[in-house]
Amino acid sequence: MLDIAILGFGTVGSGVMEVIDQNADMVTQNAAQEIRVKYIVDVRDFPGNPYEKLIIKDFSVVENDPDVKVVVETIGGAGVAYDFTRRSLLAGKSVVTSNKELVATRGYELTQIAREKGVNYLFEASVGGGIPIIRPITQCLAANRINEIYGILNGTTNFILTEMVKNGTAFDETLREAQARGYAEANPEADIKGHDVCRKICILAALCFGRHVYPDQVPTEGIERVTRKDIANAAKIGYTVKLLGRAIHHEDDKITVYVAPHLVSQENLVSSVEGVMNGIVVRGNAIGDVMFYGAGAGKLPTASAVVADIIDAAKHINARKWLSWADSDPESLLDAGLLESRWYVRVAGSEEAVKSVFGDVTFIPADPGRADGDVAFVTERMNGKKAETLFDQMAVQSAFRIID
Amino acid sequence: MLDIAILGFGTVGSGVMEVIDQNADMVTQNAAQEIRVKYIVDVRDFPGNPYEKLIIKDFSVVENDPDVKVVVETIGGAGVAYDFTRRSLLAGKSVVTSNKELVATRGYELTQIAREKGVNYLFEASVGGGIPIIRPITQCLAANRINEIYGILNGTTNFILTEMVKNGTAFDETLREAQARGYAEANPEADIKGHDVCRKICILAALCFGRHVYPDQVPTEGIERVTRKDIANAAKIGYTVKLLGRAIHHEDDKITVYVAPHLVSQENLVSSVEGVMNGIVVRGNAIGDVMFYGAGAGKLPTASAVVADIIDAAKHINARKWLSWADSDPESLLDAGLLESRWYVRVAGSEEAVKSVFGDVTFIPADPGRADGDVAFVTERMNGKKAETLFDQMAVQSAFRIID
Repeated sequence: MLDIAILGFGTVGSGVMEVIDQNADMVTQNAAQEIRVKYIVDVRDFPGNPYEKLIIKDFSVVENDPDVKVVVETIGGAGVAYDFTRRSLLAGKSVVTSNKELVATRGYELTQIAREKGVNYLFEASVGGGIPIIRPITQCLAANRINEIYGILNGTTNFILTEMVKNGTAFDETLREAQARGYAEANPEADIKGHDVCRKICILAALCFGRHVYPDQVPTEGIERVTRKDIANAAKIGYTVKLLGRAIHHEDDKITVYVAPHLVSQENLVSSVEGVMNGIVVRGNAIGDVMFYGAGAGKLPTASAVVADIIDAAKHINARKWLSWADSDPESLLDAGLLESRWYVRVAGSEEAVKSVFGDVTFIPADPGRADGDVAFVTERMNGKKAETLFDQMAVQSAFRIID
Repeated sequence: MLDIAILGFGTVGSGVMEVIDQNADMVTQNAAQEIRVKYIVDVRDFPGNPYEKLIIKDFSVVENDPDVKVVVETIGGAGVAYDFTRRSLLAGKSVVTSNKELVATRGYELTQIAREKGVNYLFEASVGGGIPIIRPITQCLAANRINEIYGILNGTTNFILTEMVKNGTAFDETLREAQARGYAEANPEADIKGHDVCRKICILAALCFGRHVYPDQVPTEGIERVTRKDIANAAKIGYTVKLLGRAIHHEDDKITVYVAPHLVSQENLVSSVEGVMNGIVVRGNAIGDVMFYGAGAGKLPTASAVVADIIDAAKHINARKWLSWADSDPESLLDAGLLESRWYVRVAGSEEAVKSVFGDVTFIPADPGRADGDVAFVTERMNGKKAETLFDQMAVQSAFRIID
């Protein structure tokens, strides 16, 4: 039997308790031992909760209990969660988490401590909710040089974009709808401004390329500027607007990481990932493209990934899982502005003016009878810096990279 | 350093050699030691091949060399491959394979021998080529009761169906095209009759549900009966014809496994898996649906999965990976004929005749001016046995289950 403690009894923490209880047979069989939750640490009271007698307020009880071999951190944020994670690792306990903010900002330091103490810091649930992605990258694709990883990493923004496509609604209206349906938070900033995607792509870049990239090093653009005009224009040429996190491993080992809306070809399976689902593409030099798809959030899917990590930690209680990487090095980052692509652009102006600035472009036909002074087009391939200098010469309304 | 031997120097075997050579840095780093190919066993001569000096003809050299800890079986079939695999395991060596036929027919026996000898029998490459699927099921989804697994498991048939959709061509013509392009073999029976899918779904069922299901226990229907009329009818109602392998875990622990063409809703991401790609959906009770997508065959993708298993075997040279299951039990199988679904049916006859036999159905409108005497429709939900009795009363041309 293995004793564990859950820190934070919110949505994910209570989901973990539920999965361990409900799927006890599977968990015991796969861990080759019973997993027992000895403590749940939370500052709040839960009167009448079936697990009330497990709930304590003082983390140091867990810290000082040698029977507790695995600590599950589902507090979130990088404050108390950081302190408790660090102290758990230093006390020789493995830590399992769904906390993407903590892994993205402190992952290098925490994996180093885990390494020194001979324990594990596992975070499958921090990216893609329940979708298996961390372990496939580190194990199944271990024979590949990973050249790129990109995808839809946030369900809220993907839900909003999908609804805008299906219903032709505007961004503000669709956001309110998403909030009413519980798919967007009352304060949706972290989602719609791309910060959530940014943290996740940082974690994936570290795992795939072996070097920490911090969120503040990553150019991040959200979906607020995506209009229904852009979505309609994209559809006319066989593309769909999607918010992507993207990390590229160049041949000279430099890394480019950024977050932005893209026009994704409808021939690319990523364009068919709809609603709150996530889809993550990994491009390896032997395997080509593989995609992992599923619910990127939600109580039970996320708990499913946390419990898989608990099982893994239980099976490797005296062995390390080699999940670590080098610290960030600004020299290893290549500016996203140097990355080439075709661009979708919408400007207020005439086709003649566009041609004089952008040269040879492909115009997207306007809707008959809806002359609104906008012109939309697709450019030749050019890097972001070059594109910016051209954008500066016209009244650009929207400009997104294109992925085929 | 770890010595290994490769048995069979065909497409996959030479791909394994290529990946180990080309990605030596990644492989060494991830295995935490160098992987050296000490022997390649093949009865053929390879004059001038860069690896010629490694090639031997006598397997017993490998069998009797205690330095060889991992044997890679890429011979294929269930003859010599079975003999060599068995002897390797009995000699205390782990075996890694891409051989779906051998795992599907002898997997129970071979995993038992591996268990007894304290070594590993790993077969990630046997299903879905390079797509990570075996390891995610056994590890990442370890906290779930898996209720169903289904998907597109054969690239050749999916290529043919995709081409029929895109070009409106007939089956025979499209098969010839696939053969000309090297996507179908000169003797395509194992693919188009569904036998290849059958082997793979047997392996997945064993892993997901813990009990061997033998290919000869699985009702298997290929794609020869799919016509362009069916494909056009499906498109009219928002569906796409796909060949699926499907394994269902019922609440009473009984298992249903079968292979057949289905109409898959275009709202289901599986319908968007095109060409030679594979897409496999796993439905867990906590995680919901996840899909794994990528190249299901090909030299380097398959080799990528084999080498990932070699790395795993190298890291677990003194530990078992718990990949095993119970033997088949006919009592545990539930006849696919008892499984309910809506059906797509095309018959030669009138709408009135259809109504008199099938009752309340939804007719698919015929193309104007193309009255060919066929009527196509979608039935209410009914099980396969009931459906068969109705089919027997009319001149049924095609009948496929519908998946939403």
